[in-house]
Amino acid sequence: MSVADIGALKSVKRLQVQRFRANTVARDDLVARDDVVATEEPLEIRLAWTRPDGRRSQQSISITMRTPGHDGELAAGFLLTEGIIAGAAEIEAIGPCGPPAANGLINVVRVDLAAGVEVDLARLERHFYTSSSCGVCGKASLEAVAVQGRYDLQGAVLPVSAETLGGLPERLRALQSIFETTGGLHASGLFDSTGQVHVSREDVGRHNALDKLIGQALLKDELPLDNYGVVVSGRASFELMQKAMMAGIPMMAAVGAPSSLAVEFAEEFGMTLVGFLKAERFNVYSRPDRIR
Amino acid sequence: MSVADIGALKSVKRLQVQRFRANTVARDDLVARDDVVATEEPLEIRLAWTRPDGRRSQQSISITMRTPGHDGELAAGFLLTEGIIAGAAEIEAIGPCGPPAANGLINVVRVDLAAGVEVDLARLERHFYTSSSCGVCGKASLEAVAVQGRYDLQGAVLPVSAETLGGLPERLRALQSIFETTGGLHASGLFDSTGQVHVSREDVGRHNALDKLIGQALLKDELPLDNYGVVVSGRASFELMQKAMMAGIPMMAAVGAPSSLAVEFAEEFGMTLVGFLKAERFNVYSRPDRIR
Repeated sequence: MSVADIGALKSVKRLQVQRFRANTVARDDLVARDDVVATEEPLEIRLAWTRPDGRRSQQSISITMRTPGHDGELAAGFLLTEGIIAGAAEIEAIGPCGPPAANGLINVVRVDLAAGVEVDLARLERHFYTSSSCGVCGKASLEAVAVQGRYDLQGAVLPVSAETLGGLPERLRALQSIFETTGGLHASGLFDSTGQVHVSREDVGRHNALDKLIGQALLKDELPLDNYGVVVSGRASFELMQKAMMAGIPMMAAVGAPSSLAVEFAEEFGMTLVGFLKAERFNVYSRPDRIR
Repeated sequence: MSVADIGALKSVKRLQVQRFRANTVARDDLVARDDVVATEEPLEIRLAWTRPDGRRSQQSISITMRTPGHDGELAAGFLLTEGIIAGAAEIEAIGPCGPPAANGLINVVRVDLAAGVEVDLARLERHFYTSSSCGVCGKASLEAVAVQGRYDLQGAVLPVSAETLGGLPERLRALQSIFETTGGLHASGLFDSTGQVHVSREDVGRHNALDKLIGQALLKDELPLDNYGVVVSGRASFELMQKAMMAGIPMMAAVGAPSSLAVEFAEEFGMTLVGFLKAERFNVYSRPDRIR
């Protein structure tokens, strides 16, 4: 597998901003100052594969608003967590595609699948139903929206102490280089039983931050990640739980609140879900047995 | 137009949680306590319309993870802000569709379009390109992803004082009934020049909170909302700016950080963008002339 360099990192953008303060009475006191914001740009993910009759097919499968950087990881992680590929062996190459946009960024990434890998077009179209299908009608929510996973997490062992968990937000924050300057990014980090955060990724979209994190492990063929938990800077939604499950991660620790479907998902698939994570306290919504 | 009751509000879910605290040494001290989390459930939006040959068509166009409540507003707002309908006159009826899921919720809403309204199927499919199209390849980002708006906001007059802006986060927070109990929801509020927040909506998805807010105004045929600004509890992304623009709202005030594309969007379409909004200070990224 080859993963081409996706181009220079342009994660922040410099601009001018006017700062208002309560003790500034006159507008004349205001001056424009230099500031930086987190970059948000579209990324189109294109899939290329060989059909059974030998012809090549190519299809755009997603446009996501992301922070440039680690685009190949993002594409790889997205394909895995959406259930489109089963593992690293199914990817032949990942690289930038087409001419750069006016701002110099290449906003298209192409993933070439390995020979013999078949693409389930119905899966690609799962967000776009035709009139004959029934979608979520009458179904239980998890049944209607959950992607089929490959790993059984019920028996995963990941003993973590409460003290270790409490230290994770500070460790994740220390690794958030872009947030430090812009205040505008979500982060995900992969931690082990000792509380060490091995890898972290940032993005304007929290689902993208997690897809990048999972994608980097996928490209190193490290899945399932059943010896790791994931710590996220924001809330725990259904979508984040599903992505973690697809990568075989048995524990989600969120600085923010969980949603009802995140809790139901964790219970259904045997994942430990921690919410409102702070140094001195946190809540556990499912499988507290992994916390010593 | 008829808007049927979408069913009882089930915005929060009760469950049991284990609370860990740093000064709790023994696991035996831990007891499960009652808690509430924000409900997250899928909502499928189905569109029904009459084709030129007189036959009825029906198509599912989106599944979004949302907090139940105001589902009809959410569907109406989504159709407008995605550029699928142009105004309230194009909607004939909105109502729940199909049998309830196992938890008693109806997670499908159907929108019947008025006679003579044509549906642009290419627009519906804009997130799912075929192999012949080029998507975002080489295009400027705004050109590639922005939906065509109907209102020119460059000349919109909305004089707001800095003091008024500074008071908005507290006013929005006071209206966040679900956040108060769960800590897990985004909010959007519609404010006027005097700082009064006329309507607010909450959701686990920030785009949904804004679609509900815009949908309630659309269903009262109040668009364009050029005498209002919108205040949001989180960050300002491209997607939120576009939704505000589609409803004719010339000002976005965000408690969190803006992204680069949110700033570019505001500059392009003449919108005022305020970020890091606090009582005593805030930043203005575009069109500061509307702030006195």
